[in-house]
Amino acid sequence: MTYYDKRHVAGEFEDVVARTTAALSDEGFGVLSDIDVSEAFEKKLDIEYPEYRILGACNPSLAKDGLDAERDLGVLLPCNVVIYEADDGIVVSAVDPEAMLSVVDNPEMDDIAADVRARFDRVFDTLSGR
Amino acid sequence: MTYYDKRHVAGEFEDVVARTTAALSDEGFGVLSDIDVSEAFEKKLDIEYPEYRILGACNPSLAKDGLDAERDLGVLLPCNVVIYEADDGIVVSAVDPEAMLSVVDNPEMDDIAADVRARFDRVFDTLSGR
Repeated sequence: MTYYDKRHVAGEFEDVVARTTAALSDEGFGVLSDIDVSEAFEKKLDIEYPEYRILGACNPSLAKDGLDAERDLGVLLPCNVVIYEADDGIVVSAVDPEAMLSVVDNPEMDDIAADVRARFDRVFDTLSGR
Repeated sequence: MTYYDKRHVAGEFEDVVARTTAALSDEGFGVLSDIDVSEAFEKKLDIEYPEYRILGACNPSLAKDGLDAERDLGVLLPCNVVIYEADDGIVVSAVDPEAMLSVVDNPEMDDIAADVRARFDRVFDTLSGR
C-alpha cells in the first residue's frame, strides 16, 4: 500500500497549481493552507530547491464529520495535495486518505476516507483531461 | 497505538496558541500553516464551533531529510499541532510522527520520526511548566 496517488500533469508549474486548486474546488475542497516548501528551504536553509507546494485541501462537511467522530483528528487534517517539479515534469501527488486514516482506529473514518478518495480520483481525472 | 499525544494546558485559548508557537520555535519548528477550523466552519457551514486551530509545524532541516528520502512525503507534512477548546479546558494535541510515518514503508523515516517526537515531547514539557 502506498500513502499517496500521483500523476504527471502537463503544463507550467503555476498553471498546474491553479488547475489543481480549481479541480479541488469543483469537488468541494477549499485550500486552507498553501505552503511553498522551496521558498521555506531557500529562506531557512539557504539552498535552492525545486518547486514544491503543499496545498491543504478541506471539505468542510467531511472535516466536520471526521472531527465529530474523533476530536483529535485535526492532527491529520487537512488532506494534502502536493505539486512538485520532478526531472521529468510536473507531478501532482495526493495523500491516500484511506492509508492516512488507517492509523485511526475508528470505523467511522472508513466512509469519510472513501468519500475523500473518490473525490481525489475525480480531481486526477480532471487534471488528466478525462 | 494512538496517532496523537495530548495534554490539557492551563490558560486562555489565544495565550495557549502563542505559548505553543513559542515552544515549537524553541525546538526548531516554524509554523508554516495556521488553520482556524472554527472560523472555516462558521463561514462554510454556518455553524458555531468551539475554538479549534491547526498549526503546521515544520523543522526545515528534518523536512528536507524526509523529502530527500521520499519525494512524495509532503502529502504528510507538516506535522500538525492542534489546540482546541474542550468541555474541561484547552487541549494541545500533536500528531505522533512515528504513528503517522508508519504508513511510509521506508526505514529512513524512523530516525526522523523519533527526532520529531522527542522535540514534541519537550514542547509538551515546556507547556506543562516542567
